Amino acid sequence: MNNTNPTHSPFIVRQARLAEAFTKSGFDCVALNPGPSLMYLTGLNFHLMERPVIAVFLPAKAPVLILPRLESLKLEGLPFAIRAFPYDEDPSEWPGVFQSAFRAAGIEDAKVGVEPICLRFLELRMLERAAPKASFISAEDSLAALRKFKDESEVATMRAAVKIAQRGLLATLPVIKAGVTEREIAAELMVQLLRAGGEPEYAFSPIVSGGPNSANPHASPSDRPLQIGDLLVIDWGTSYKGYISDLTRTFAIGQVEPEFMQIARIVAEANAAGRATAGPGVAASLVDKAARDVIEQAGYGAYFTTRTGHGIGMEVHEEPYIRAANPLILQPGMAFTIEPGIYLPGRNGVRVEDDVVITKDGLECLSDLPRELRVLG
Amino acid sequence: MNNTNPTHSPFIVRQARLAEAFTKSGFDCVALNPGPSLMYLTGLNFHLMERPVIAVFLPAKAPVLILPRLESLKLEGLPFAIRAFPYDEDPSEWPGVFQSAFRAAGIEDAKVGVEPICLRFLELRMLERAAPKASFISAEDSLAALRKFKDESEVATMRAAVKIAQRGLLATLPVIKAGVTEREIAAELMVQLLRAGGEPEYAFSPIVSGGPNSANPHASPSDRPLQIGDLLVIDWGTSYKGYISDLTRTFAIGQVEPEFMQIARIVAEANAAGRATAGPGVAASLVDKAARDVIEQAGYGAYFTTRTGHGIGMEVHEEPYIRAANPLILQPGMAFTIEPGIYLPGRNGVRVEDDVVITKDGLECLSDLPRELRVLG
Repeated sequence: MNNTNPTHSPFIVRQARLAEAFTKSGFDCVALNPGPSLMYLTGLNFHLMERPVIAVFLPAKAPVLILPRLESLKLEGLPFAIRAFPYDEDPSEWPGVFQSAFRAAGIEDAKVGVEPICLRFLELRMLERAAPKASFISAEDSLAALRKFKDESEVATMRAAVKIAQRGLLATLPVIKAGVTEREIAAELMVQLLRAGGEPEYAFSPIVSGGPNSANPHASPSDRPLQIGDLLVIDWGTSYKGYISDLTRTFAIGQVEPEFMQIARIVAEANAAGRATAGPGVAASLVDKAARDVIEQAGYGAYFTTRTGHGIGMEVHEEPYIRAANPLILQPGMAFTIEPGIYLPGRNGVRVEDDVVITKDGLECLSDLPRELRVLG
Repeated sequence: MNNTNPTHSPFIVRQARLAEAFTKSGFDCVALNPGPSLMYLTGLNFHLMERPVIAVFLPAKAPVLILPRLESLKLEGLPFAIRAFPYDEDPSEWPGVFQSAFRAAGIEDAKVGVEPICLRFLELRMLERAAPKASFISAEDSLAALRKFKDESEVATMRAAVKIAQRGLLATLPVIKAGVTEREIAAELMVQLLRAGGEPEYAFSPIVSGGPNSANPHASPSDRPLQIGDLLVIDWGTSYKGYISDLTRTFAIGQVEPEFMQIARIVAEANAAGRATAGPGVAASLVDKAARDVIEQAGYGAYFTTRTGHGIGMEVHEEPYIRAANPLILQPGMAFTIEPGIYLPGRNGVRVEDDVVITKDGLECLSDLPRELRVLG
């Protein structure tokens, strides 16, 4: 148990906010495995592999943490109290440690909130076995609410993550030309993102898709060399102090068909319409509609097959989602992408993506690289 | 539905092997979300985010795949038949799609095997809702058995992944000296791994830990600058065609305490003892014992706080685990790490890790960088 002075720790404040949120939703506690939420609440990070790690947050009590003993050093100097239940290497001993932790926390028959996109079958079954009378239910809403509003220091970190991403892309542009493969460009971009100050711990792989591959919004970089006449979609970002940037720009490799230049103009306009519409008090669905209207009116509605954007912060995708049926009202501190696209199957695609934050008066766009189609190679 | 010629696809063979294994274990089918097992069975990869993806494998029938419509392009040209159930962006429609898929597969009341370290609460609850009469049980053993024996082409790929990792480290050594931070070295190493041919899609973050941090086997790179007298543990690897390498070497920054040189010698000996012992017909526990005996006899048994190794392949950690209580008999094709260490809390640590494959006659060690303590800076 650590008992250092908790006064100045943002983690204490965040844990109290979480407890307030889940109590209101009728939960007795929340059990989290490693991921952005655990990091936001504790600063603790663990690689998610075959050894389960679970933190249980309770109202007005120190959290309980079940973890491999070899990870216990990470708990030294934590700025808040924690009750640690370390286990050794033999998996047959783990259920007993889970049981002790649940008994100590007094939650054997609790209503336990969990995080659906993080908690795994591995941990869930261990929890169910440790507490057969407890119920395990999605606390998605309490958790999303927790991280949905970025404070000034979080926005400053996101601004830095965007600047690093932009510098990394600019440093990569000189290698892009016909004959170079998507995978080669992706590797060079990752190098330049690290050089620009991106964190190696959470590096994520860019989408670099040329020609027909660019018509797949979620393509993986292939060994196809770029050809004159291709559009090239680069969807990339980086992580800085745990916060993510996620941008997309589209390029032309030499001269491209007039229709490709036209869809690039339409998508840039749709992106501008989304940014012009988003602001405090506006529904997420209206931002989607503003971008979608531009593309529909130009006759390409059927080829804008994705939502307009997704929330962004410690995760690449999080609340709020900018899609047609989402009535959510945008409020200051919410951060998300605006990324309309036109995807012509088997031919080429265009996407233009910016990261924005709702402010009291309107919108701050964190990214400022030119959005028009730039010719390379 | 794709109906291309399946004769030459390794995926068909692997799917049939899986079906045989899970049928023997009493399962009707296996439901997998994205990860190494799905990639091994289908070649398909999806980024694991807020949209669920599930593939259901059945005996002697085409697998069923539930996925976001915007990912459907990935199914073009698959070398085996698949029954795709794509869904659109509105989450309220997803449960209906899951239900249709389960009905089509005829598994509404099946015994469904799942992968505990991959399947998330998100997918599990969707599956349970789609098939309230089905049971969902860990098929860990059937899945581990599937990938536990590497064939010649897999071993060749792992050899290449190790070579890339070794080249990347050698190219990084020149920047290592007192005053440079762990994080700077980690970023440079990731750059050099990409330059050496490592795949950007599955880059993973190295452990670079100097001085007191090196006493934490699972440290994250910090902003602490290296100091003369530090030991420096670098635990790194890369991915090549989906296969992983995972190595560790320990360095001295200038002159270090005699005891640190001594523990480095002991750990190199323990590593050699583990490699000398491992072979076909030998229990995993004996390999652990061989390495551990060296360290215990030298009086440092209490400071070797981890198991001796873990299986390696498409995942950084997989079967077989090389630990005291594991009676598993090693057989040709099994691949794993041998990574004894001595960790002196608050002071310094040493680890020496190699990747090995059991052969018919003994052992192939894929890595060959020198194991003695090398002085840098």
